[in-house]
Order: sequence, then structure tokens, then C-alpha cells
Amino acid sequence: MGHEWDLHTAVEATPDGFSADLDPGWVVGGGVNGGYLLGVIGRAVAETVPAKPDPFAVSAFYVSASRPGPATVRTRVVRDGGSTATVAAELSQGRDVRITALATYGDLSGLPDDVRTTAVEPDLPPLEECIPATAAPDPAHEVPPLMERFEMRFDPTCVGWAVGQPSGRGLLQAWFRLADGRDPDPVQLLMVLDALPPVTFDLGHPGWAPTIELTAHVRAVPAPGWLKVSHRTRNVAGGMFEEDCEVWDSAGRLVAQSRQLARFPRPA
Amino acid sequence: MGHEWDLHTAVEATPDGFSADLDPGWVVGGGVNGGYLLGVIGRAVAETVPAKPDPFAVSAFYVSASRPGPATVRTRVVRDGGSTATVAAELSQGRDVRITALATYGDLSGLPDDVRTTAVEPDLPPLEECIPATAAPDPAHEVPPLMERFEMRFDPTCVGWAVGQPSGRGLLQAWFRLADGRDPDPVQLLMVLDALPPVTFDLGHPGWAPTIELTAHVRAVPAPGWLKVSHRTRNVAGGMFEEDCEVWDSAGRLVAQSRQLARFPRPA
Repeated sequence: MGHEWDLHTAVEATPDGFSADLDPGWVVGGGVNGGYLLGVIGRAVAETVPAKPDPFAVSAFYVSASRPGPATVRTRVVRDGGSTATVAAELSQGRDVRITALATYGDLSGLPDDVRTTAVEPDLPPLEECIPATAAPDPAHEVPPLMERFEMRFDPTCVGWAVGQPSGRGLLQAWFRLADGRDPDPVQLLMVLDALPPVTFDLGHPGWAPTIELTAHVRAVPAPGWLKVSHRTRNVAGGMFEEDCEVWDSAGRLVAQSRQLARFPRPA
Repeated sequence: MGHEWDLHTAVEATPDGFSADLDPGWVVGGGVNGGYLLGVIGRAVAETVPAKPDPFAVSAFYVSASRPGPATVRTRVVRDGGSTATVAAELSQGRDVRITALATYGDLSGLPDDVRTTAVEPDLPPLEECIPATAAPDPAHEVPPLMERFEMRFDPTCVGWAVGQPSGRGLLQAWFRLADGRDPDPVQLLMVLDALPPVTFDLGHPGWAPTIELTAHVRAVPAPGWLKVSHRTRNVAGGMFEEDCEVWDSAGRLVAQSRQLARFPRPA
């Protein structure tokens, strides 16, 4: 109670869906951070199917840029049966649809404990050897409000872009937590998957990279504490790129994965 | 004209959406192949926004198993503006929703030619050294109808599962084309992304792996000829796994990518 994350993503049931108030603290680039918006939608879906509180898979299509202020999330249960429910959700401002999404929710705490993975935890130096976002000069010479929501500590080998020397590997990785210390939960992970700067920074192309589509898979309830987040891209083509994100929790588990298709930043 | 792919995925506009007839030739495991169903939906979306004929991103949530026979695809344009259109689509049989999907379409041939990739083409031996699907004894001792739709030639290092010796790497790769030689196109790639057996075969767990959600990105118009297809998984947890697929065309380009979240096969 009282954490800004909970306040900023609060939704209220109305006869017309859920009302939300998009907080100006999440502005970045050309609009409101897409991960935050996914968190707001995620809350509305959770309230729609309260017995299945956790996102398993969420796909969001970003059709127009959001602005701070009032928004409405309308949800529709497509199917609720067995251990999962599938819900359609649409976030609008006035008559403009901002995001249309589909989600399958269930209860992550009810899943078997088996893990069999060849995925490898991001190899990050200790927190104290990583670089705070506030230490990195922003390429646009301003710190967007979004950056005040988080503590991020970047892998020193991934922040060359901040001084004009991007690595060119297409890799960004960082330690991550909310600024007020609010611990992660499954819905919050939807935001964490799209919180870092676009991975195209590391290709020498800073600038806004509008998301066309982002799909998140939440694979486990995250343990409290710092998260490790990595973003990679492998294929830039036709003016678009895919960005794969992984989030690992303090217990060393892969708790969330996402892939998005985004537009490659235009030269400033 | 006359190719079975075109006939089997044909949709007809009706006052209630698009009617389709799901062909029994695509039955596999517990229902009709999910890739084929995505192709049917893909055709309906293309007819909904004919000036934007190609899928850029499609996310499909599989809520119940389909049966051969009549189906209806209802589409709704969420936004059509600029170079892309976003459409919601739902495939139903009777009162049962089978698949609910979102798609962003555009014109792939109108995109810039730039490619910058670190993705590596699947390393497949020449066609004549790969193993036809018909040569691999199916673990269930039957060849599903689906297998007659394709020519698939598996990488010999990835077919140990057929003789009880899965590699355990979580990798399947094969040459692929339609049995009647129909060349690939962007909508057909939606099917190709979900045509191979589940990658869990290579983990020693043959059996049906129902898709919860699959998102496809089509990145370029494929060149004619054989395709190379790879499937990987990295994380099995909580009774689910993610499966990443890539499709490369005969010109050596990464033309489509997908990730799906699926249920791990239960012991037979």
C-alpha cells in the first residue's frame, strides 16, 4: 500500500470497463512507456478474472501513442475454463484506441516446480560495479521522467552508447528495481520487460523505437529483490527489428521473457 | 490456382464474417494443426485489409482444439492508418471460439531493403543427406495426415528421437516445402512456423504439446524454393515451454520468426 507502482497502475471498475489515470511520470520518447501501459492493462485483466490472477502470456499491439491522463481499459472474457482464462483487452483515450491486447491468465503459484533450462542467467558484474542510469548522459541531453521510476545499473560493457561508443553487439543488460523498493510481482514483470532503453542504442542508433507488437510470457512468481534484465536483437530488416528480453529474479530463475517487433529509430 | 494450400485456406466473405472449411488433411495430435489455422486466419485478415496484404506480426491464442469442418472467422479493424492496419480476428466453430488473434498487416514489398543481422542461417546438410519425415518412425506408430502436406528433410543430428535417442539439446531443424511444390508466400509462412513436430521431441518427450499462444513476425517476402526451419527451446518450467522458430528462405534471408508458449507433453 502506498507504493507508487500500485497507485500509478490502479484501475477502477466502471459501467464502461475500467478507468485508469496514466501518470506523467512514465513519459519517455514519443509517449507513455509501453511497459507501464501493459502493467495497467495487466491489472485490469487480473480484476476481470480474479481467480486467475497471474499473466501467463500477454500480446499487445500498440496502435497509437498514449498521453498522460484518463484512459479506459475494456475487457472481454474469451474463454474461462480449467486452469486458465483468455481475455481480450483494449486501452483507449477518448475515441482513440492506444493498445489492443490478448492475455491468458492463470495461477503461477499452482504450477509444478520442475525447471529444465539451458537458458543462461545474464552475466552481470556486482551491483556496485555497474553504472547507474543517472550517470549515463542521455543522447538527447535530457533525462526522461521514466528514469525516475527505476533504479537501473547497467553492465559497463553495454553502455558505450552513452559516450558515443556503442558495442554494436545488440545487447543491453542491467540490474533493475523500482525506485521506491517495491518488490516485483507477476504483473509488474510486464512493465520490466519494456523498461530499458531500446537495444538499438547499442547499435549506435539512439532514439525512440516505437513498439508494433510485444508478447510477454511470465514463467514464475519472482522472488523479492533486484532483477537482472537483458535485451537483445539479432535481425534488423525492412526498417524493423525484433527485441528479445529476459528477466531473471534474485533466486536465479528466468521469470519472464518477451519478444517485441519495433520500428528502427529514424536518424535524429 | 489449384494448389491444395490455396484451396484448403480459402475463405469466403459472408454477412457473418468469413466462412472456411477446415480440411481433415491437417489433423495431427489432438486437433487440427495450429499453423494451418493461423494460415486460414491470415487469409481472412488479408481480405479484410486488401491494400495491406502481408502479415508483419500476428499473435494467436489457442483456446480450444479445432475439428475438421466448417468454421467462421470474424474480423474487426482496430486501426487502419499510415502503412499498417491492425485487425482482431476470431476463429469459431459453432459457439466455440477456437482461436482469438490480433494482427498487424502491411506491404512487405514496400519496405526498405536494409538488413543488419547477427542471426545465423541454420546449418543444415544438403537436402540429399537429410532425413525425410516419412523415413522416421513416428513415436505413436502412425503417420498423421498432416505429414502428407509437406516435404520435410530433417537434420540427421536432430532425429535421434525417432529411434529413442533424443539429443536433449532442444533443437529440431529441417528443410521444408509444401508437398505439391507451391512456393512460399508471407501468409503461408504463418503455417510453416508451426509445422514441425514439437521441439520437446528432442528432449525425449514426444506427444502433443498444445499451444497456448503463438506470435509470428514475418520479416520479408520469401524467395521461391525450399525453406530452412529451426525450432529451439531454452526453458521448460511450470509445465510449459517456449518454442522459438526461425524460417530462412532460399536466398539466405531470415523471413519469419515466432515464439510460442506451449504445454509440456504429458507422459503417454
